[in-house]
Amino acid sequence: MSDYRPPLADISFALTDLVDLERLRTIDEYAHIDADLLDSVLSEAGRFMAEVIAPLCRIGDSVGTIRNEDGTLTTPDGYKEAYAMLVEAGWLAAAFPEQWGGGGLPYVAGMAIQEMLTQSDMAFSLCPMLTYAADELLIEHGTEEQQGTYLEKLVTGEWTGTMVLTEAQAGSDVGALTTKAVPQDDGTYRITGTKIFITWGDHDLTDNIIHMVLARTPDSPPGTRGISCFIVPKFLVESDGSIGAANDVTCVSIEHKLGIHGSPTCVLSFGDAGEGSVGYLVGEENQGMRYMFTMMNNARLQVGLEGLAMAQRSYQQAVEYAIERTQGRAIGAPKTESSPIVDHPDVRRMLMQMRANSEAMRGVMYLNGEAIDLATSHPDENVREQASERASILTPISKAWGTDLGVEIASLGIQVHGGMGYVEETGAAQWWRDARIAPIYEGTNGIQAQDLAMRKLPLRGGEAVAELLAEVRSTITDLESADSDLAVIAGPLADATDALDEAGAWLLACMRESPNDGLAGATPYTTMFGTLLGGWVLARGALAAAGTGDFGTAKAATARFYAANMLPTVRGLLSATTAGAADLFVIGPDALAP
Amino acid sequence: MSDYRPPLADISFALTDLVDLERLRTIDEYAHIDADLLDSVLSEAGRFMAEVIAPLCRIGDSVGTIRNEDGTLTTPDGYKEAYAMLVEAGWLAAAFPEQWGGGGLPYVAGMAIQEMLTQSDMAFSLCPMLTYAADELLIEHGTEEQQGTYLEKLVTGEWTGTMVLTEAQAGSDVGALTTKAVPQDDGTYRITGTKIFITWGDHDLTDNIIHMVLARTPDSPPGTRGISCFIVPKFLVESDGSIGAANDVTCVSIEHKLGIHGSPTCVLSFGDAGEGSVGYLVGEENQGMRYMFTMMNNARLQVGLEGLAMAQRSYQQAVEYAIERTQGRAIGAPKTESSPIVDHPDVRRMLMQMRANSEAMRGVMYLNGEAIDLATSHPDENVREQASERASILTPISKAWGTDLGVEIASLGIQVHGGMGYVEETGAAQWWRDARIAPIYEGTNGIQAQDLAMRKLPLRGGEAVAELLAEVRSTITDLESADSDLAVIAGPLADATDALDEAGAWLLACMRESPNDGLAGATPYTTMFGTLLGGWVLARGALAAAGTGDFGTAKAATARFYAANMLPTVRGLLSATTAGAADLFVIGPDALAP
Repeated sequence: MSDYRPPLADISFALTDLVDLERLRTIDEYAHIDADLLDSVLSEAGRFMAEVIAPLCRIGDSVGTIRNEDGTLTTPDGYKEAYAMLVEAGWLAAAFPEQWGGGGLPYVAGMAIQEMLTQSDMAFSLCPMLTYAADELLIEHGTEEQQGTYLEKLVTGEWTGTMVLTEAQAGSDVGALTTKAVPQDDGTYRITGTKIFITWGDHDLTDNIIHMVLARTPDSPPGTRGISCFIVPKFLVESDGSIGAANDVTCVSIEHKLGIHGSPTCVLSFGDAGEGSVGYLVGEENQGMRYMFTMMNNARLQVGLEGLAMAQRSYQQAVEYAIERTQGRAIGAPKTESSPIVDHPDVRRMLMQMRANSEAMRGVMYLNGEAIDLATSHPDENVREQASERASILTPISKAWGTDLGVEIASLGIQVHGGMGYVEETGAAQWWRDARIAPIYEGTNGIQAQDLAMRKLPLRGGEAVAELLAEVRSTITDLESADSDLAVIAGPLADATDALDEAGAWLLACMRESPNDGLAGATPYTTMFGTLLGGWVLARGALAAAGTGDFGTAKAATARFYAANMLPTVRGLLSATTAGAADLFVIGPDALAP
Repeated sequence: MSDYRPPLADISFALTDLVDLERLRTIDEYAHIDADLLDSVLSEAGRFMAEVIAPLCRIGDSVGTIRNEDGTLTTPDGYKEAYAMLVEAGWLAAAFPEQWGGGGLPYVAGMAIQEMLTQSDMAFSLCPMLTYAADELLIEHGTEEQQGTYLEKLVTGEWTGTMVLTEAQAGSDVGALTTKAVPQDDGTYRITGTKIFITWGDHDLTDNIIHMVLARTPDSPPGTRGISCFIVPKFLVESDGSIGAANDVTCVSIEHKLGIHGSPTCVLSFGDAGEGSVGYLVGEENQGMRYMFTMMNNARLQVGLEGLAMAQRSYQQAVEYAIERTQGRAIGAPKTESSPIVDHPDVRRMLMQMRANSEAMRGVMYLNGEAIDLATSHPDENVREQASERASILTPISKAWGTDLGVEIASLGIQVHGGMGYVEETGAAQWWRDARIAPIYEGTNGIQAQDLAMRKLPLRGGEAVAELLAEVRSTITDLESADSDLAVIAGPLADATDALDEAGAWLLACMRESPNDGLAGATPYTTMFGTLLGGWVLARGALAAAGTGDFGTAKAATARFYAANMLPTVRGLLSATTAGAADLFVIGPDALAP
């Protein structure tokens, strides 16, 4: 496996030339954030990730976290020490409010740190990622007392947090869960039930783990309207903040998975030994799904970021191999020497595909992060509302398009290695295996697509999406009047935008009259949307970087490559999007595989 | 993991309604082959694979073949007994001439048997697959004496064969190999050198292994023109056919791989302990590459078949899960019940994509096999030549398009399972990991694409490809005059054919003037070509099955689904094919990943 090199130049470019940093600075608490500050913070963070976290990645994969006979878990050698250093360095808290021990950076800058952490070791990165979600939940919906007890310890990473939703019969359909929460006279609840697929549900990294658990109170309405959210610490916390008795939360087993071996995926049992684990209600009863959704949106973007992270890491390694490995002779090379495979057009095409898509993902996702910052903190309510709407459109795209691409790009990374890519010691296969979870969890990509087509596209009768496409069209106008070497992008970008418009109009119409037809086209529509936005951000980047020497030349070549290779596939998916559901249901289930 | 069910109805349909069985029967030795005979043979073979081989697949993956401290290999529990039963039942010999102990079936019928063997356990299936290649090499190029000594034992499977090409510095560039073959006074050679990535290079299934080894004689010309081919048995064979002394071939190590764990991928050392392993020259010196290529074409099709096999197996398992698993409520379902996920349009779309592509692959690959039969055995020389040309065009498509699809479809199989798909015990991930080798070995898919665009497309100035497309256009004419429910396919099929024509014309022009531009487009061109042919065979199948009740209705729905969802992506890749190489080389290697 190659050493990790943080992609600082591209990250910095996305944060300063795609994201509107000046606008973020109109938010009081970010007024002091400028490009120089970001660069110095991120280069320090990148150095830390490369030196402390990235070396753990192979042992994390090959040994993984182990469940011992006594039910305790042992994380891979070095994880515990590295986690302590990460807490100590303050990187986990960087993008949280100073009030809770945070570093006060914008959300989007935190994404950059998380991108690099994930590139270093995705399995490891999931532990902080889940903690961020718990942080956000408590900041938004916790009582002052709950915040006082848990928040600073979670934000700094002294304790970790989890999201405890899934049960065996309730995966995508969270409303089907049956874990019980019985109110007690002292205002607490007793929680009993078994939850599965709990990421970092138990471990040995910290002294306590704070579980955010969805459960049902007695006589609650059925489905999602009857779900409440509870804080259930692994160890109860005494009034002085010290750690008290165990709270009857046990890790019954961990999964043997395709990838992210370092990350323990737990079956957790609550209240198995007694009257139930003690839980503290967050907010009001029966509002748990709503609270989870505030948090889940950001988590979905964070999962999208995993697609980007694996694509970028895989790209780095593939480039390094393609430069070192010689094989055959490229056209025009000296007759006596074999050429590095990077000189073969088909290999270079794969590398450019990896590069262009990684940059495209970063652009779309960081704009998504910027929208979250504006939605959360901008002083103008109109700006907050618009930004919130924008984030809600971009999030399912970042998640679904980004994670599908993460798998596809990591597969190209294997391919560049030839036979060596199939040998585990090479390390190229790990990115692909690790990346494969991201299209599944935090809402499958099918559910993301449904969310985009059924809820987000219809926002304001389609106007919200139309406003985003108007911004794309404004970039097309800029391209048309640009230097000739970027003007060629205008045509493919316009054609892709037209195709997406057409698909959107069709979907909007059938959402009213024949929703199954719309649902049948939701996934290709999401791919169309993501692919188009990817071309847009690359074009914007190329325009912004024009005249900056080699850097600008590279941005232009990457944007043109994407425009010629990726953008025309958008129209290629229009027919799949508008094909309808009729032919899907001709063959009955039993006849599908006789 | 679900039980394996051989897809007999679809296999039989492809062999009798797509393949021109009547024409195959004009070959004397196949005159007795009719649909009933094929059906009874294949259903028997399928039963054997399902009962004897398929149960080994999980242990093959989870334990794998192990190299012991003494250098011997131990295959997974049950492999040895199953292999013996496979030999005893005669399935390995089924499609070889009776003269060598074979069953006298056509090649394409042997493909059907191999498809089912691969679906049952791909890692296991590779051992016979490599032996077939050795069989073909000896039938074509061995002396009578060599054939007498080795062929019957190889054809029946009593011994296994290998293909020994790759060295550390010579993978895709076979011409760079350095293993030495020094002639002896008795006409034999002494072989010394180290070879890597030798599939089933050693094992405990049989008493002997016959290696087909590429090596260089002294003073041979450089590159591929100086390579000779040798028979190097693991144990020397005495003149009475009994097994003699060990021949100094040692398995130095085996690879720790992403998948196909049951299949030992060996580093083999020849002549490490003495003056060299004894080798017997096949044919003439310096003609080894030519001999290997006769055999390699069929091997490439067999690897394509692995893509089909993993897609089909993954599809079966996904359908089964989608019927069992309930989650959420489909539109129109009773309010009180949760629905099987097979009723959700997005899940059904994934299943139809898996189904349609599996059938498309089978159609293209079996036509490829039919062409090999005609090329090998048809009495009319003109037919043989045309068929040989046709096989040479289809083979890189079967291999590259088929194996890329195998990975993509197996990934959808994981996705249908949601979180359970990521848990190894479910078994859905194995198809995906196993499938991932197929785009790499037997010539990477990039090399297949180069072969198609640089050698096959230019055959007779493009006429050979044009004749194939004329057959597609003839099907379009049939569709236009067909029942209205198939006529809708004509438009997408015609548009895809036009796009492929345009891409082909562009590539032909630049092959002469700017080959790098052509090489840059070779991979998308191959995908275009395969996707188009897939739509063609499905349309032909639907036409042939029209009026046959449910079976015909299903074929029609599958063909329409593919026409709406897959065929329009052909034009979507035209721009990528004709984009040229200029933008690939703007960014220098060192700047690709700074």
